Amino acid sequence: MRPFGDRVIEAVGRIGPLCVGVDPSAALLDAWGLPDDATGLSAFSSRCIEALAGEVAVVKPQVAFFERHGAAGMAVLERLVSEAASVGLLVIADAKRGDIGSTTAAYADAWFRGPFAADAITATPYVGLGALEPMTVAAQETGRGLVVVVATSNPEGRGIQESTGADGVTVEAALLAEIAARNAAERAATGVVCGSIGAVVGATRRGLRVETVGGVLLVPGLGAQGATVGDIVEGFGACPAGSVLPSTSRGLLSVGPSGLRGAAARLRDDLAAALA
Amino acid sequence: MRPFGDRVIEAVGRIGPLCVGVDPSAALLDAWGLPDDATGLSAFSSRCIEALAGEVAVVKPQVAFFERHGAAGMAVLERLVSEAASVGLLVIADAKRGDIGSTTAAYADAWFRGPFAADAITATPYVGLGALEPMTVAAQETGRGLVVVVATSNPEGRGIQESTGADGVTVEAALLAEIAARNAAERAATGVVCGSIGAVVGATRRGLRVETVGGVLLVPGLGAQGATVGDIVEGFGACPAGSVLPSTSRGLLSVGPSGLRGAAARLRDDLAAALA
Repeated sequence: MRPFGDRVIEAVGRIGPLCVGVDPSAALLDAWGLPDDATGLSAFSSRCIEALAGEVAVVKPQVAFFERHGAAGMAVLERLVSEAASVGLLVIADAKRGDIGSTTAAYADAWFRGPFAADAITATPYVGLGALEPMTVAAQETGRGLVVVVATSNPEGRGIQESTGADGVTVEAALLAEIAARNAAERAATGVVCGSIGAVVGATRRGLRVETVGGVLLVPGLGAQGATVGDIVEGFGACPAGSVLPSTSRGLLSVGPSGLRGAAARLRDDLAAALA
Repeated sequence: MRPFGDRVIEAVGRIGPLCVGVDPSAALLDAWGLPDDATGLSAFSSRCIEALAGEVAVVKPQVAFFERHGAAGMAVLERLVSEAASVGLLVIADAKRGDIGSTTAAYADAWFRGPFAADAITATPYVGLGALEPMTVAAQETGRGLVVVVATSNPEGRGIQESTGADGVTVEAALLAEIAARNAAERAATGVVCGSIGAVVGATRRGLRVETVGGVLLVPGLGAQGATVGDIVEGFGACPAGSVLPSTSRGLLSVGPSGLRGAAARLRDDLAAALA
């Protein structure tokens, strides 16, 4: 399989810069007229895939909403991943996994090689990016991506993310530099255009050298969280073409299944025009 | 259900201070003569529960090793949680979950109310403890625990965890103080002895005010990771009786199924004597 970063660049170039979160919360299942159980979850997922196939580059199932339904919900996630792949949608499993030692290798098995194997997974770095090494190596080996949470837009995240190390650099800036270094090494070694390690940076976050990350930037916050297309352009317009994935979930999904395709296409076109 | 913290105090007082990690890695499944699939995972889990029932206070399944086997693995986890409860073992699901907004509420549903509902779950705080509010509230409402990763023993964790905020306090110390404040408020409001918010602190970590946390301290590192009973006493001997859960996984599980009960009992007795 071609490396994840280059597959994103290609898909965004062909279709447009938008990632749609698949967040089947109890409230959205109800709004879509579906039961809050695994059958509702399955119908919701299938309708999202049908509506979004060919219209967006990437879908991002939020794993928590599948875990709510236990093993039956996780079986729906397995099917969603394979259904999405069969219609050419890239999948970022929004799992926010992260741990140390052999556990990290187990997560790599689960999300890059096992039944959930998606094109990429999100990761949380509290134990240090270096501790996630088995996941970064496995991502590169399998042509998949590890998209690391770096800078979130929620106010409670500022305390940790803006703390500074002994060198005066903030946690989020240091992490972004570490990701950039890994992507630079990968690009030098393999010739990929866009490295396998991505970063999650909230749409309204500023002051970070996002244009140097050398991997995919997943940018949540459009819609329900209040960010606009203008915010994306202002914060991420200088990043390499095709590497930015603005993401929306509730804001778009709340239009309901029948309006989803059209609403996604309009937002995608707005983003494509603004980022062009 | 009685609050999680008080249930831990009671179980540790009655049985002894030990948490055994259930980590069915590919290597351990092989060492136990079991296949690396959901049937092997199921046999491994059942043998652990049988061996540990009545001998230890708490078991800690590492969720990554169940995810490796997809939805079928997660079904084994559902059964493990209910089997453990039926023989009186407390369960901390080592899931390291954490996110913002409605996702956090979904994790609370999954791990405190849904089919995976364990006595407690581990959480990762990169987005800020405040962002996990729906999980802390749900833990208190359901008599369950949220055990937050604070200070890990891996060297890659030092960068983030020892960064300092504008007040000069490290990330890990600030987090511990925030947890202590929440537990103090809960104790004042409800009269519990031990609050619902716990902390994960590696066995070899020092210099943190662990004795003031007012909740359960989950302390990994015994055995394969190199920490000793002496390390536990040195670092955590001043914590309130029954609130410390030293944890071991591989080091103990590698004795195999037939020796597990005896080895767990010996380690538990060593810890009980040392912490008395």
